[in-house]
Amino acid sequence: MKVLNFSECVKSGNDTYDFMQAIRKCKQEKYDKIVFPKSVYEIDTVYCEQRNLNVTNHGINGPKRIALLIEEMQGVEIDFCGSKIVTHGIINPVVIRNSRNVTLKNLYLDNPETMVMQTVVEDGEDDWIKVKICSGGEQFFVKNEMLYCAYNQEDLYVLLSSMIEFNGVTGEIERGTADNPIGHPLELKYEKTDDGYIIIRRVKRIPPIGNYILIRGYCRAGSGIFIENSEKIELKNVNVHACYGMGFVVQFSKDITFDSCGTRRIGNRMYTAGADATHFVGCQGDIKVRNCYFEGQFDDALNIHGMYLGVTHRLSNYKLLVKQMHYQATGLPIIGRGDELQAVSIFNHLPFAKKTVKDVEYLNDQIMEVEFEEEITDIPLGDLLENLTKTANLTFEKNIVKDNRARGLLLAGKGKTKIIDNYFHTAGIAIMFEAEIGWWFEAGATADVIISGNKFDNCQTSNGGWGNYVIEYVPRDETVEDEYFHGSVKITDNEFITNHGMLARFNNIREVVLDNNLIKNAAEPKVFVYHLGMITTQKGVKVLK
Amino acid sequence: MKVLNFSECVKSGNDTYDFMQAIRKCKQEKYDKIVFPKSVYEIDTVYCEQRNLNVTNHGINGPKRIALLIEEMQGVEIDFCGSKIVTHGIINPVVIRNSRNVTLKNLYLDNPETMVMQTVVEDGEDDWIKVKICSGGEQFFVKNEMLYCAYNQEDLYVLLSSMIEFNGVTGEIERGTADNPIGHPLELKYEKTDDGYIIIRRVKRIPPIGNYILIRGYCRAGSGIFIENSEKIELKNVNVHACYGMGFVVQFSKDITFDSCGTRRIGNRMYTAGADATHFVGCQGDIKVRNCYFEGQFDDALNIHGMYLGVTHRLSNYKLLVKQMHYQATGLPIIGRGDELQAVSIFNHLPFAKKTVKDVEYLNDQIMEVEFEEEITDIPLGDLLENLTKTANLTFEKNIVKDNRARGLLLAGKGKTKIIDNYFHTAGIAIMFEAEIGWWFEAGATADVIISGNKFDNCQTSNGGWGNYVIEYVPRDETVEDEYFHGSVKITDNEFITNHGMLARFNNIREVVLDNNLIKNAAEPKVFVYHLGMITTQKGVKVLK
Repeated sequence: MKVLNFSECVKSGNDTYDFMQAIRKCKQEKYDKIVFPKSVYEIDTVYCEQRNLNVTNHGINGPKRIALLIEEMQGVEIDFCGSKIVTHGIINPVVIRNSRNVTLKNLYLDNPETMVMQTVVEDGEDDWIKVKICSGGEQFFVKNEMLYCAYNQEDLYVLLSSMIEFNGVTGEIERGTADNPIGHPLELKYEKTDDGYIIIRRVKRIPPIGNYILIRGYCRAGSGIFIENSEKIELKNVNVHACYGMGFVVQFSKDITFDSCGTRRIGNRMYTAGADATHFVGCQGDIKVRNCYFEGQFDDALNIHGMYLGVTHRLSNYKLLVKQMHYQATGLPIIGRGDELQAVSIFNHLPFAKKTVKDVEYLNDQIMEVEFEEEITDIPLGDLLENLTKTANLTFEKNIVKDNRARGLLLAGKGKTKIIDNYFHTAGIAIMFEAEIGWWFEAGATADVIISGNKFDNCQTSNGGWGNYVIEYVPRDETVEDEYFHGSVKITDNEFITNHGMLARFNNIREVVLDNNLIKNAAEPKVFVYHLGMITTQKGVKVLK
Repeated sequence: MKVLNFSECVKSGNDTYDFMQAIRKCKQEKYDKIVFPKSVYEIDTVYCEQRNLNVTNHGINGPKRIALLIEEMQGVEIDFCGSKIVTHGIINPVVIRNSRNVTLKNLYLDNPETMVMQTVVEDGEDDWIKVKICSGGEQFFVKNEMLYCAYNQEDLYVLLSSMIEFNGVTGEIERGTADNPIGHPLELKYEKTDDGYIIIRRVKRIPPIGNYILIRGYCRAGSGIFIENSEKIELKNVNVHACYGMGFVVQFSKDITFDSCGTRRIGNRMYTAGADATHFVGCQGDIKVRNCYFEGQFDDALNIHGMYLGVTHRLSNYKLLVKQMHYQATGLPIIGRGDELQAVSIFNHLPFAKKTVKDVEYLNDQIMEVEFEEEITDIPLGDLLENLTKTANLTFEKNIVKDNRARGLLLAGKGKTKIIDNYFHTAGIAIMFEAEIGWWFEAGATADVIISGNKFDNCQTSNGGWGNYVIEYVPRDETVEDEYFHGSVKITDNEFITNHGMLARFNNIREVVLDNNLIKNAAEPKVFVYHLGMITTQKGVKVLK
């Protein structure tokens, strides 16, 4: 085994440049392994590699700085030996693309100044509170009583989109709160003091002293780990302390394993990633997430889905113009030659035709000209297409999900989906089946889901702010008799600790089994059902329509 | 001559798509000419071509939508017969790249909703005014007494950078005003009424009723016409009514002619381009701008320059890391193999070494690894490099420059520079020699300038807001005895109409001739001089140090 040690590559007096040269050397000279001695590596984005990246669900396509670029590499192991890479400003610190058989190990990523500012409540009365800035305050400033969050340059600012509140003692999302517990950040007035405090006026509620108020600029300017067009990638003990957008994004890749990874808090910082902890789009093969630890991120722990594409113009009996619908999910290679596409109704989301792609040309990052093998005269303009070829199995096993904004898992994968032996303590829904066409256009229906051996520990404490159930299937606009959007789900041998007792909403599913679960604390555990083919529930659970 | 008429290409029911197909057909089937019948073409950016563009002095590199893309074309004439292309939202409507011998004719570009809002003053008292929104208000909104300008999506908004004021009768910049005549837009308070008015509070001055107040979000999201890496391009009667950033940007191109082009106002709109009317960087050969008409743009009528690059690291005796210094001028192919570079001192900007580029690698859009033919041990870190190979001659002849924000011309070209028979009526300096390293890092020294036959009609009325002289040479931090930054300038046979009499400041020039000019209205015409090799001035002009 040919091993390169990074210490042999330290030459220029510029760490970031040496970092880049080490990876290039590893690639060019075909090393099997590169070892970075345990250290704190401070990255200067000015000297980083750069690629044009279109990161799904992030928006802002274009040139991105990258600290560690694994590109067109095969059969290599990269071991950071527990090192931390610290970045500042907008960056995608780790990118793996067009690669196969790569293992990345023992790495911690931190970016202390993302678009989140953490404050702690020290005083308050009537309609004002006084908070002390704890971290992430560098890029926020007050002008004319308004709070601004700067983007990467002088011209642009980020919309202040939300605040969330953490309990100062338990580190949980404050129970009974969801987004904007003291009011919408654009409706409040701010005064910054010279000694590091902000006085916030017009608040609609005064949080307990010692609670943390986190203020977020909504802009997914970068992700922590980004993997695209790759196969057989394993991440082992790779962790994100903080990053701009999502922690781990994987798109159009196959057979991906995350083992003992996570979004992990550091010091007294309550937050980690600026959006989802993990996000998978257009993947194939087996996605495995196990022994991971997800906390403090600003959105769900995992989201797996395809994309619904809109049919906008018919150019001929074989050619359509097709559109990527959400402005933050453009520029993706969502359709390839030979892919099997399924047409679904915009009303009930049920499939009515399958077609094979003969050729595709991307006119820009929104519009594709797609030529089919078959006639497509049966697909009306306005309906949707989804990709049946690019779909994966998911195993989510022995993970811990806790103390994050929003939900636990968002599942929309057509492959076999196993959610086994996990611990959930989420302020919103623990497991959500979302597939929707109203905003994100995240496809699609699940076929075969097993939820077993999990502990749902007081999930959904947000008073409806982030859903109403522990497990929830979002309804479609329309249903069709004897046809179902989802296939089967088996929820067995789990433990539910819940005082609200709202176990699940089942909607538009062929077969539901809810059996042999241990349910604690609930006076009257219940599930709500609508348009099901078949349901089996255990004794003591009330079924409501 | 093989001529394609666009009317043969109208097929899909989507004008923008047909537009793209027509240009592709012209290119693929090698037409000599394409004719677009006179019409108003409404472009839908969703269906436009897209390229990754790095437009100099604009920032925001990355994917850009393009309505008319002339790419890798040779020997073609494109005649729009007086048509108007109307675009909405962020776009670079016309892009010419990697092309030769292209003529583009008889075209008008408009984008009614850029990042400028025009209002007219209808009332005012004490510290408030009431203005009516005339145009460009769609993307501005008031929230919590603050005025915001949206960027292209929900997450980002643009810094409100400045206001300017036009006289409601004459259409000039209100005399005695420059930027922010009623206060800085971020220091004011706003209330929007349902019937299309804005009440602005905390103003420091009440403008005359009927004057126009223009509020600008500073973000150069697109340009009107963008030309790069092309040769022998002629634009004839091509006009910009309004666009986001600059009207016409030309970079790294050779032999470019603009004839009868311009930035032209439409209706009662006072503004045209969102920044300079024309801008040339890294060009070669002959740049000719003649019979053009520039008005209403938010910055200078013309700016021609190179770029100063910073030397940041020495990798070996032959290799440097070199940096593009301004965040809005990155990603440019500023150095190529075989180019001759000149090292200049950061203090006095005087050259002290010439080197030839053996090879260059762009690590990202800021940093280049440059290998030289010669040893570079004599170039200290922190000093600057400029490109001697990429420099052009400029002829600016028979043009009209009037009623724009800021200055007339910014000249920093090493080639022969002729400014002949033009009319200037600028609120700021008419002709400025700027080359500086404090902010934009625009290079460099002029060698041979002729300014002759021009009429300077009441230039510099801004009371020092945009300079203090009709012609101004910006000083360097340091001078060296018997060495001069600029070569020669001959200012003869011009007409100066000026009541302030501040004709020029000459600084750091080898030879100045100011002779045979007709000077009207000035009680005591004067020039200010510092560190000149030789000066000849005409009778009646006072020379002050």
